[in-house]
Amino acid sequence: MNQAIGVIDSGVGGLTVVHELMRQLPKESLIYLGDTLRCPYGPRSEGEIKTFTWELADFLLEKNIKLLVVACNTATAFTLEELKKHLSIPVIGVIKPGARAAVKFTKNSHIGVIGTEGTIRSNAYPRALKSISAYLRVNSLACPLFVPMVEQGVLSGTEAEQMVGETLLPMKEQNHIDTLILGCTHYPLIKDTIQKVIGSQVTVISSSEETAREVSTILEFYGQLYNGTKSPAHRFYTTGEMGVFAKITEGIFKESAEYFQSVTIERAVLPY
Amino acid sequence: MNQAIGVIDSGVGGLTVVHELMRQLPKESLIYLGDTLRCPYGPRSEGEIKTFTWELADFLLEKNIKLLVVACNTATAFTLEELKKHLSIPVIGVIKPGARAAVKFTKNSHIGVIGTEGTIRSNAYPRALKSISAYLRVNSLACPLFVPMVEQGVLSGTEAEQMVGETLLPMKEQNHIDTLILGCTHYPLIKDTIQKVIGSQVTVISSSEETAREVSTILEFYGQLYNGTKSPAHRFYTTGEMGVFAKITEGIFKESAEYFQSVTIERAVLPY
Repeated sequence: MNQAIGVIDSGVGGLTVVHELMRQLPKESLIYLGDTLRCPYGPRSEGEIKTFTWELADFLLEKNIKLLVVACNTATAFTLEELKKHLSIPVIGVIKPGARAAVKFTKNSHIGVIGTEGTIRSNAYPRALKSISAYLRVNSLACPLFVPMVEQGVLSGTEAEQMVGETLLPMKEQNHIDTLILGCTHYPLIKDTIQKVIGSQVTVISSSEETAREVSTILEFYGQLYNGTKSPAHRFYTTGEMGVFAKITEGIFKESAEYFQSVTIERAVLPY
Repeated sequence: MNQAIGVIDSGVGGLTVVHELMRQLPKESLIYLGDTLRCPYGPRSEGEIKTFTWELADFLLEKNIKLLVVACNTATAFTLEELKKHLSIPVIGVIKPGARAAVKFTKNSHIGVIGTEGTIRSNAYPRALKSISAYLRVNSLACPLFVPMVEQGVLSGTEAEQMVGETLLPMKEQNHIDTLILGCTHYPLIKDTIQKVIGSQVTVISSSEETAREVSTILEFYGQLYNGTKSPAHRFYTTGEMGVFAKITEGIFKESAEYFQSVTIERAVLPY
C-alpha cells in the first residue's frame, strides 16, 4: 500500500508533526495542507472552524490518503469527532496523544498544559485528561506570545528565555507539576527554551512527537504501514503565499535537511 | 461498555504491564492469567509456545474481554500475528510498542535492546525496529541473570548494581546507544538500577509502560474505553501455586497498594 498520510493544519505549526512523522515513519509519504491564508483559526467561530477544517480534509481525501492527521489543536477540539464519524479512513488529532503521554509520564498526577488562548479556553486538554483519570490535577496556562515569537524566529537565547520565563512564571511558582504538555504544534520549536525555564525535573511533552507515535501505532494496527522499497515523496500545499510558506518550512527543517530532500511545495486552491 | 481488558503471560512478568494499565487506565477492569505452572516459555519449542498461548487466550476469551494483551515477549514473538488474524477483538503485543517508543526517543538512531536469551535469539526487536527504519543501528544483549535476580527480589543495592553492571558492560563499553529498550516484562522492576548503571544520557524504555500506552490508544480509537462510574474490579488467575503467585504479586504492587485493592486471585484450570 503506497497511499500517503494526510496532514491538515491552520498554518505552519503542523509542520512539527510532519517533521516527527518523517523521523518516526521514514518510509511513509506525506501530503500536508496548511491553511496559511486563513490562519489563525483560534479566534474564529465554531461554525467557521468546522467549515474550514472540512474543506482541508476534502482536499486531501481527493488525493487518496490512507489516514488523516488533524495537526491543529483548535481544529481537533471542534472537528475531530465529526471527521472520525464520517470518514472511512482513520482520523487522528493532536490532543489525546499528548494527554495519554502525560498520564504515562506523571508520577505525582499533577500535569501542566500550555497552549494558545483558544485551546486553553476550549478546556480540551483538562477534559481529555480527566476522562482518563478523575484523580489528575491539571494546571492550564495560555501563552499568547509564544506563537508570534516562534513565527518571528525567536526560538532560543536571552530574549526567548526572558519571554518564556515571564509567561511560565505562574506555573513555575506553584512548583507542583512534574509533566508539562506543549498543547500547541508551534511550541516544539521552543521546547529547549521551555525545558530550561521550567526545570529538568519536569517532563516536557510535545504533542507533535506523541501524535506521530500514535499514527505509527494505528497504521501498524491496521496493517497499513508501507513496506515497499520506494523512497517517500512528500507534497506540501499552502492556501497562502508560496514564498512565505517555503521560508518558514525551510526554517523548521533546517537542522534535518535529510527529511526534506523529497518535498515539493505547491499552491492549494480550495473551492470557496 | 464494561468488559475487561485481558492480559496473558507465561508467568508473573506481565504483572508490570498490569501495573501500568492500572496507572494509565484507572477506570478499566483487568483480567490477568499467568501460566506460572509452565513458566518459562523461553526455552520451549515454537509449537508448544503457540499451543500454550492459545490456551491462555481461550481462557480469557470466554470471560468476554474487549481487548487482549500478550504481555510476554516470547509469546508475542511467536503467536501475535496468528492471534490478530483469528480474533475479532484487538490484540496487542509487547514488542512493537517498545520499538516505536525507542524510535520516538532516539536522536542518534542507535538503539540498544536487552532481554532474555530467547527474545534476543528470536531477533524480534531488531526486526521490528528495522521494519520502521532501515537506518537504525541496533545492539542486542541477552541478560540471562536478570529474571532470576528479579524473582529472588534483588532489585536494587550493591549486589543488584554489580550484577547489572557486569552484564551490561559490553553495551556500556561501546558507548553508542542513546536509547535502551527493556525487552522483557520483568526488567521494569530493576529499571532504576539499569538506569544508574547505563547512565543518565541513555533513555531507558519500559515495554510495559509503552504497551499500556498503546492499549489506551487503541481502545480510545475504537471508542471502547469505559466511561461509567463503577469502580474497576480486577481478577488475577494463575495456573500454578496460589501462595507463590500471591506473594510475587504483592511484591510487584507493594509501593502502589491503591491499585491493588480490588484484586481477587484465583486458580485457573486449563483444559489440558
